[in-house]
Amino acid sequence: MIKIAIDAMGGDYAPQAIVAGAELARDASQNDVEYILFGDQQQIEPLVKNQEHIQIVHADEVIEMDDEPVRAVNKKKRASLVLAAQAVRDGEADLLLSAGNTGALMVAGLLIIGRMRGISRPGLIVTLPVVDNDQGFTMIDAGANADAKVENVLQYAQLGKLYSQLVRKIDNPRIGLINNGTEPDKGDVNHRKMYEELEKMGQAGELNFIGNVEARDLLHNVTDVAVTDGFTGNAALKGIEGSALAVVNMIKDSINDGGIREKLGGLLLKPALKQIAQKMDYTRYGGSVLLGLKAPVIKTHGNSNAKTIFYALQSAAEVANSNLVHGIAMQFHADQQQK
Amino acid sequence: MIKIAIDAMGGDYAPQAIVAGAELARDASQNDVEYILFGDQQQIEPLVKNQEHIQIVHADEVIEMDDEPVRAVNKKKRASLVLAAQAVRDGEADLLLSAGNTGALMVAGLLIIGRMRGISRPGLIVTLPVVDNDQGFTMIDAGANADAKVENVLQYAQLGKLYSQLVRKIDNPRIGLINNGTEPDKGDVNHRKMYEELEKMGQAGELNFIGNVEARDLLHNVTDVAVTDGFTGNAALKGIEGSALAVVNMIKDSINDGGIREKLGGLLLKPALKQIAQKMDYTRYGGSVLLGLKAPVIKTHGNSNAKTIFYALQSAAEVANSNLVHGIAMQFHADQQQK
Repeated sequence: MIKIAIDAMGGDYAPQAIVAGAELARDASQNDVEYILFGDQQQIEPLVKNQEHIQIVHADEVIEMDDEPVRAVNKKKRASLVLAAQAVRDGEADLLLSAGNTGALMVAGLLIIGRMRGISRPGLIVTLPVVDNDQGFTMIDAGANADAKVENVLQYAQLGKLYSQLVRKIDNPRIGLINNGTEPDKGDVNHRKMYEELEKMGQAGELNFIGNVEARDLLHNVTDVAVTDGFTGNAALKGIEGSALAVVNMIKDSINDGGIREKLGGLLLKPALKQIAQKMDYTRYGGSVLLGLKAPVIKTHGNSNAKTIFYALQSAAEVANSNLVHGIAMQFHADQQQK
Repeated sequence: MIKIAIDAMGGDYAPQAIVAGAELARDASQNDVEYILFGDQQQIEPLVKNQEHIQIVHADEVIEMDDEPVRAVNKKKRASLVLAAQAVRDGEADLLLSAGNTGALMVAGLLIIGRMRGISRPGLIVTLPVVDNDQGFTMIDAGANADAKVENVLQYAQLGKLYSQLVRKIDNPRIGLINNGTEPDKGDVNHRKMYEELEKMGQAGELNFIGNVEARDLLHNVTDVAVTDGFTGNAALKGIEGSALAVVNMIKDSINDGGIREKLGGLLLKPALKQIAQKMDYTRYGGSVLLGLKAPVIKTHGNSNAKTIFYALQSAAEVANSNLVHGIAMQFHADQQQK
């Protein structure tokens, strides 16, 4: 039985959306997942329609969106997030999920759950859609670590490979390095070094390194894993997100502000546009996963609604079922023994 | 009389598109611009329909797209790009424009035209559309310099300010720093330092620093100038470009591959979609300008057609008319005297 520790008080629509999402996930699951909701019992209990496979653990503090992460995790010892992380640390749950303060979630992951042996900086992996198929690609690090060293990025490549194999079931995932051009000599000093080292790992058969990839091509299925330092990854990801949304909104606006012609056209194209919007809807891809901790930590958008939480919990169950933590431990344990 | 030195052999559709673009620009101008086409006279001459304000300077070598930039500029001494850059250096033209090999253009700018005194690394400035108005915003450095130091980025802020004032006629342009969050403490070590220094410059009244901006918001008019190191700028820019194009293409595909319903809807929405496509069409924004040289160098896309060249030449004339080079020289000359 998989157990997911959920910060029921985190996110703009908590606890309502979190509880509703957990119930949706429970209804869709094979009764093999237990959802443990951490938060204010008085608020949460009346929201639960059916208590099957749902537990509530009372927590009378909440870490707010604008709380300073390290301070909040250290001081608010009875916060829902802190208690949920402790449950994971103590083996009472397999992984942690929150839609709350991202920084605090990472700090709780690092300080309470703890890093896995052999990994110096955990990385955030997100799955994004591509235009050409329904599978999408993953990016790691999407922004956990702004000051990445070459060594960190090489570990992200390995983490991305394992995630793709074990969770996404891609046999021999393509690993590309986000860079400012596709030629091998592109990039700043660090990225040229990363390329060199990744190429060596490729030649040694450790991973399927396909070379540099550009942010512009990511939505066109150029790679299964886009490896990057967290600062660049964040910029590329936010550029992609912002621009896709801007175009979709411009189309909506021109339909809404238009005359009969635009409105009729919009009506006729509605199913097609809806399909595109669904394809580009990152929330369906289940949130981002912080990898490299003793247990995975899953972050969903602050504005997650019940459906977003539902997808994220499905994805969480897949991660828990995938034996990913074991796979990562084996890889990095073996690496350490070699050294 | 403004004189523009044009590499007529650079770009996928050279020399046809370059010549046609120059004639379009000439026809639309007030007879105050001279277009000097550098390239193979035998190829170019028959393409020119009307020689008014158009000169041809023969060059019997061409730098190809895949030539190694430094080597090509040094070895191909009779290349169209090299001769055009020499004309600018010698005062025979006011600025240089090419749709060819970007690296070679930058190398020609640095080695032949030369850096302006006081500027350590030139920066590439591009103008992009925003959703909310027709003015757009500029990003500097969009990718000239992958290994930027804090000092370089502070100069980009000043260059961006001067460009916005003198060329784009924005009185007191907002200067934002691209970072991985809007809070002052965001970013890696370098970006935190950049923030600090930009804030000081803002407090000293040297520029209107509005703080950090995120790549996701750039298309929503959050700033007039987005300052960034060239590596991050490149990733953000390519993310934005790639994603906007991907969404537009998905819509086109679903109309083309759809049934009667989608085709009719597409037909009705055609003017609205065309307007959006035009708004997002970066080629209308006149190419990117390498700032910090003794004369501006303008780069347009390799796949530029006559219309792209036309826009870029209009933009080039605006830059030449704006007295930008003088403004930059004054600013950085004064800076140096203070030190």
